[in-house]
Amino acid sequence: MTPATTRKEISDPAVSPHSKATYVIGVDIGGTNLRVGLADSSGKVVGRWSRSLQERKDPGSVVGLICEGADQLLKDHRLTRDALIALAAGAPGVTDVDSGMVIATSYLMGWRDVPLRDLLKSNFELPVAIENDVNLAALGEHRAGAARGESNFVFVAIGTGIGAGIIVNGSLHRGHSFTAGEIGYMLVPGASEALVERGKPGALEEIVGGNGLVRCWQARWRKDLTTLPFEVTATELLDHAREGNELADEVLQHAARALAYGIYNISLVMNPSLFVLGGSVGMHPALGDAAWRVLGERHVRMKSRLVRSELGTDAQLVGAVSLAIETAKNKR
Amino acid sequence: MTPATTRKEISDPAVSPHSKATYVIGVDIGGTNLRVGLADSSGKVVGRWSRSLQERKDPGSVVGLICEGADQLLKDHRLTRDALIALAAGAPGVTDVDSGMVIATSYLMGWRDVPLRDLLKSNFELPVAIENDVNLAALGEHRAGAARGESNFVFVAIGTGIGAGIIVNGSLHRGHSFTAGEIGYMLVPGASEALVERGKPGALEEIVGGNGLVRCWQARWRKDLTTLPFEVTATELLDHAREGNELADEVLQHAARALAYGIYNISLVMNPSLFVLGGSVGMHPALGDAAWRVLGERHVRMKSRLVRSELGTDAQLVGAVSLAIETAKNKR
Repeated sequence: MTPATTRKEISDPAVSPHSKATYVIGVDIGGTNLRVGLADSSGKVVGRWSRSLQERKDPGSVVGLICEGADQLLKDHRLTRDALIALAAGAPGVTDVDSGMVIATSYLMGWRDVPLRDLLKSNFELPVAIENDVNLAALGEHRAGAARGESNFVFVAIGTGIGAGIIVNGSLHRGHSFTAGEIGYMLVPGASEALVERGKPGALEEIVGGNGLVRCWQARWRKDLTTLPFEVTATELLDHAREGNELADEVLQHAARALAYGIYNISLVMNPSLFVLGGSVGMHPALGDAAWRVLGERHVRMKSRLVRSELGTDAQLVGAVSLAIETAKNKR
Repeated sequence: MTPATTRKEISDPAVSPHSKATYVIGVDIGGTNLRVGLADSSGKVVGRWSRSLQERKDPGSVVGLICEGADQLLKDHRLTRDALIALAAGAPGVTDVDSGMVIATSYLMGWRDVPLRDLLKSNFELPVAIENDVNLAALGEHRAGAARGESNFVFVAIGTGIGAGIIVNGSLHRGHSFTAGEIGYMLVPGASEALVERGKPGALEEIVGGNGLVRCWQARWRKDLTTLPFEVTATELLDHAREGNELADEVLQHAARALAYGIYNISLVMNPSLFVLGGSVGMHPALGDAAWRVLGERHVRMKSRLVRSELGTDAQLVGAVSLAIETAKNKR
């Protein structure tokens, strides 16, 4: 560590002048994987650890794994828990940041009203913050990615499903009941108007999300129409579309138009300077490029730029680290 | 004026302790009418003046009429311009509040880049603020109407067209280029996907706005289908629907569904606690009630209440007065 960095740290009220260096833990709880990062107090991620959540994803098991990951990372860096000043974790669902509860998520086998912050606090005895995962990704892109310096932008994450993280005047806009950005249910031309049961994919998600893309492919697939297999992943499907496969391109164009309409609607409401596309499906060049072509038709009113995430799969973790540093400063 | 009010005014930094009482001017520039209000520094409107803008609506004429109205109101109250501490005006178009320019409006015969704030400043030699008219109505409802105490809400104005004023954390959200809330172009199921020329009504507006409602009625009208006339106003049409006329009800239900979808989409993005419906068409009980029934089907995700404006046609003027008082405090 350079003397300059050390000086900066000592002047930081969150950092004790007696300690040599302090660290934070950032956690990204995904639907299928758990990722834990150890970062120094400048936000630089110095170590990463991950585990599959396929087998067990109840709150107790996930918190246990977070402890395991954090302790392993500390050990790897010859540190103890005394070096930690805060922890922040993102969960894939509606998250009440005030009470520290994960209210609902369809990705973790139905977590409901889980006091995740308290569970982590009692294990780590540290200031802890929790946040929705897409919101964390927006924070990550804001701090160190494609949205540096933007004070009004929207991060659109497309993986299995679709969601948005909204930054207004440099801060997260979470909404009245922490559901701002739940755009998977948006109604656009071409989307189904059918009522959607709780926990089921929304109208926009059913066209644009990874699972929706695959279902859309399989609904159109016929042996005599294509040599491509019935079973594909969403990114394979987008690869095929990019390589010129007609049936795959049909599915892509349908999704790109719905995505473009969704982005257009958000831009009419919020008028952000920028949209950042993230997530494994959202990052695929085929989808972003095709959506941008549709948006180009509406350039008179579409005042926002559209770019791809710079941090990719790291956006949530970088956001979690950033939130942890902020949390240490506020001593939550 | 009671001694209590006088004490309050003297303690206000915007008010000189040497003057007996101070006043502000609020202005609502509509597409067809100009309304000027004189208010005391508590925000109470003590006098109103209005003129039709049918004949002349160029910037010079409108500013001249604002001067005429203000001077008449002052005269009526035996006051001079010395009693004024600020003026605020709302314009029906995209308004850059930083530069004080009305960038574009289709309602005032194509005003473009009109330096309205400077024009008013040079006439009144006062602190002046300008703002989009729907944003002013949102401020009005926030200060003294249906949204008192709400820090995250959306005011939806439906008259000839449709637009929204968005309050986030107690402040107006104007967006990156002052076009936040231009929801008339929103794309919902049932709306046209056709590209819209500059200055023409948007897809949602074409179904829900007053002019759109009438066009929709006239497209369905046939002599043998109804005894009602071909020529109706939007509010007459809604009255007929409320009284049970089948063809009018068809038009209403079509509009109510599109409006409900638009509100639902905004609620997914912003998650406000409340929507306030205003404007001559938006205030009509038939439209609000029918839209609420559609939204009721989606109650699982629709977390916001929907109410009618309390201030009605006064919302813009009350908002202008409120902004003028704020402007006096900030000595803009």
